[in-house]
Amino acid sequence: MSDSRKFSVNKLAELVDGTVKGDGALAIVRIANLDQGGDNEVAYVENEKFFAAARDSKASCLIVKKASGAELSPPAIIEVSNPKLAFSIIGAALNPPKQREPAIHSTATLADTADVALTAYIGPGVCIGDYAAVGASTRIEAGVVIGDQVRVGSGCVIHPNVVLYDGVTIGNNVILHAGVCIGADGFGYVRGGMGYHKFPQIGTVVIEDEVEIGAHTCIDRAALGRTRIGRGTKLDNMVHVGHNCDIGERVVIAAQTGISGSVVIEDDAVIGGQVGFGDHTRVQKGAIIGSKAGILPGKIVRPGVWWGIPVQPLAEYKRMNAHIGRLPQLREEVKQLKRKLAELEEKFAKD
Amino acid sequence: MSDSRKFSVNKLAELVDGTVKGDGALAIVRIANLDQGGDNEVAYVENEKFFAAARDSKASCLIVKKASGAELSPPAIIEVSNPKLAFSIIGAALNPPKQREPAIHSTATLADTADVALTAYIGPGVCIGDYAAVGASTRIEAGVVIGDQVRVGSGCVIHPNVVLYDGVTIGNNVILHAGVCIGADGFGYVRGGMGYHKFPQIGTVVIEDEVEIGAHTCIDRAALGRTRIGRGTKLDNMVHVGHNCDIGERVVIAAQTGISGSVVIEDDAVIGGQVGFGDHTRVQKGAIIGSKAGILPGKIVRPGVWWGIPVQPLAEYKRMNAHIGRLPQLREEVKQLKRKLAELEEKFAKD
Amino acid sequence: MSDSRKFSVNKLAELVDGTVKGDGALAIVRIANLDQGGDNEVAYVENEKFFAAARDSKASCLIVKKASGAELSPPAIIEVSNPKLAFSIIGAALNPPKQREPAIHSTATLADTADVALTAYIGPGVCIGDYAAVGASTRIEAGVVIGDQVRVGSGCVIHPNVVLYDGVTIGNNVILHAGVCIGADGFGYVRGGMGYHKFPQIGTVVIEDEVEIGAHTCIDRAALGRTRIGRGTKLDNMVHVGHNCDIGERVVIAAQTGISGSVVIEDDAVIGGQVGFGDHTRVQKGAIIGSKAGILPGKIVRPGVWWGIPVQPLAEYKRMNAHIGRLPQLREEVKQLKRKLAELEEKFAKD
Repeated sequence: MSDSRKFSVNKLAELVDGTVKGDGALAIVRIANLDQGGDNEVAYVENEKFFAAARDSKASCLIVKKASGAELSPPAIIEVSNPKLAFSIIGAALNPPKQREPAIHSTATLADTADVALTAYIGPGVCIGDYAAVGASTRIEAGVVIGDQVRVGSGCVIHPNVVLYDGVTIGNNVILHAGVCIGADGFGYVRGGMGYHKFPQIGTVVIEDEVEIGAHTCIDRAALGRTRIGRGTKLDNMVHVGHNCDIGERVVIAAQTGISGSVVIEDDAVIGGQVGFGDHTRVQKGAIIGSKAGILPGKIVRPGVWWGIPVQPLAEYKRMNAHIGRLPQLREEVKQLKRKLAELEEKFAKD
Repeated sequence: MSDSRKFSVNKLAELVDGTVKGDGALAIVRIANLDQGGDNEVAYVENEKFFAAARDSKASCLIVKKASGAELSPPAIIEVSNPKLAFSIIGAALNPPKQREPAIHSTATLADTADVALTAYIGPGVCIGDYAAVGASTRIEAGVVIGDQVRVGSGCVIHPNVVLYDGVTIGNNVILHAGVCIGADGFGYVRGGMGYHKFPQIGTVVIEDEVEIGAHTCIDRAALGRTRIGRGTKLDNMVHVGHNCDIGERVVIAAQTGISGSVVIEDDAVIGGQVGFGDHTRVQKGAIIGSKAGILPGKIVRPGVWWGIPVQPLAEYKRMNAHIGRLPQLREEVKQLKRKLAELEEKFAKD
Repeated sequence: MSDSRKFSVNKLAELVDGTVKGDGALAIVRIANLDQGGDNEVAYVENEKFFAAARDSKASCLIVKKASGAELSPPAIIEVSNPKLAFSIIGAALNPPKQREPAIHSTATLADTADVALTAYIGPGVCIGDYAAVGASTRIEAGVVIGDQVRVGSGCVIHPNVVLYDGVTIGNNVILHAGVCIGADGFGYVRGGMGYHKFPQIGTVVIEDEVEIGAHTCIDRAALGRTRIGRGTKLDNMVHVGHNCDIGERVVIAAQTGISGSVVIEDDAVIGGQVGFGDHTRVQKGAIIGSKAGILPGKIVRPGVWWGIPVQPLAEYKRMNAHIGRLPQLREEVKQLKRKLAELEEKFAKD
């Protein structure tokens, strides 16, 4: 939800390095789907599968791939190299993030030693601990609890009821959705004679710039050292990241994936939903792991597409699945062999 | 937890269209299990498996299926067509939901433009945004954050620390358990040269009447358009519903199930726990999906019972599992065949 | 995060019943990893795999197993029977839990009938309901909501935004991490003609002493009776415990595991992450269940190590997996058999 703005087609094309065909002066106020677009709205044509829908679209402006051969005739066209990316950038321009006037709400509780930028917004009921710092233009929504010595960078949006435990560090332009929990104790115990003793969990968490984290995702502090989420990485809802994990830059992890302690995920990996990682696994740069995969402790996942429990290269997974699918047939073949062999034995015996 | 009331057996029977045998004037104050019931308590006998327990029960009143042939002799019996359903209705009568006097707590923060019904209860620390509306007799518990332009219907119970992002719509008689998060941004990005750009997430969420949603469940807003949870649907704890999903009426989804973007689940489907749905899947009316199943993107799940990863009809799943279970035997058979064939070859060569 | 203290090696050795070699008067201020330790720091040598790292370590003091034969020469050594356990105990001494001065924050909302110990700390925005009780030296952090008639014992730490529904009981020395939700309604409905009726959820939850529960874990109240988490049990983040479960003492359950209604887990069981339990299952004392396992409703899991979906003894699981892995070879063998048999048949026919 955000306030809509208004731009000319020419102005939008400029934002995305696009070429205008048709009426560049047309005013655009909203983004829309191809099938629901109308006057003063812009939609995008991802690829040739959508040409028919694009021809039927009533959107005033369409974003189309250069030299696509689509033969469309809306009032205006913006030609670009990547229509979906251009649509995203134009969508952001038309729907800028919610702005809040800088303020500290009267119901917020700030430690005397907390250092909050003058341009920050601190919502109702927010708590900020001793020696914590909040950067310029950062927006902290209602009910957020920020512990002692936490550092939150500039340009961040911290949605309601997020909890940042003592000492964690949040970079710039980070978005934390509602209920995110960063810096709770890692899950480590040592069995003694009488039960479990807590292994020390005195490390921290570092979230780098441009990270976005989905609702209710939990990232535990390191036992010693730090748990890290690298620059530009995106985590979906209800992901669990255990203590001492090191997640690289531009990694994407879908909802409900669980990552045990001391896992390393290198830059640019793509991880599906509900994946489970055993501890001390390493995912190499360029690896793609399908949803619901299970990775055994200590495993190294090399570049390529991986699938299954336990995880294996997708091609191998498919091959084994095909073998399993042919089991009834294999069984039938063995039965026939037995019968034929018995016949032959009988014939031979008679012979 | 709720205040208990007191009813006569006759009055309770009336509520559930039941027939009384024995002392209809007996006062009932509590529901109980068969084995723990006592004076002034009512228990139910689900079916013949519980006849022995019912004969031993000390509960003053038993709810029994009509013409069940149970031969029970507690002080009172209520005969009905569905004892478990009758017990539920009687339990609700004896344990009405907690009532709060209409009030707006002094520590709540309401926008001037918020429209809160006079009969609503707004608890401590609640925040309600601009142009938001809260209906009659709705109870908003402590720490709930309601964004701008949110609509909450009448007769709802919103438990502590729920977050409703800007613009979402909640119907009437909806129950949202603690920590539910509705309307966070969907998980959509477009890869550009420098990393990921956020795909616009400017749609909304509509929760229809009589829906109940378990603790910490997250339902993301649509990219464009809306994510919908249909009337009478029940979601368990920590379910993830992605952007643009359309969940029908009277659907039941157990805990920790994850639903990717643009999934359609038609009316009356039943979904187990920890199920994972790839995007753009469709579950047809009458489908039942077992716990931990995995559904590949784009799959259509037809009526019937489904199981496994990837999901398949239960009968097929069982058949394949049986084939796998017989693998050691199959292998043994192949070994024997090889031996016998070798013997025969040898004999033949000698011959 | 906590204030560090300072102890002599002799004093630390005393805490863990250890024997000092070298400079017992040396001051130790911090725990560290072997490879990062330095002056005034103590590290531990878990076993012989770490002897080389221990020889390179610059930590002032090493905790080593008695008679390990490690041949190390740091400034000080503490010899003990279990180095990791000793390190945990020393780590706790050097990093005592955060202390808060007893206080009730001015923004907290306490019912007149609530009974809060004089030595308790009640943070900003906390709500405590009617007839609720909070024990001595318990620390309730910001944004926690405690319902009516809840009992919280002494020495507990309740992290921000935890929700305790009406009537639940929390023992002594319990740690609840941020966002934990205890006592939400169990997931039980009865299908009637018009849709689902809520089955009564009027029982409670009992959390015994020394339990630690990870961020966002949800434990539902019983329908009737109680859901129980036994003494000394440790739950990781985002675990779901359904209504009427009975979890024993010193049980360990890793992140994102889901436990359906009426499951019994006996003392000392160890459960991996993302495991799913069908209702009415029973896990016996001494059972260990691997991550991502699936347990069918009603199953009894006996002592030993279990794995897979559906769960089976690990040895069995490995055996079946090996059989599946050899399927391509088996198929090849069957092909060969067919060819040889055909050849033999042909020869025989000619003969």
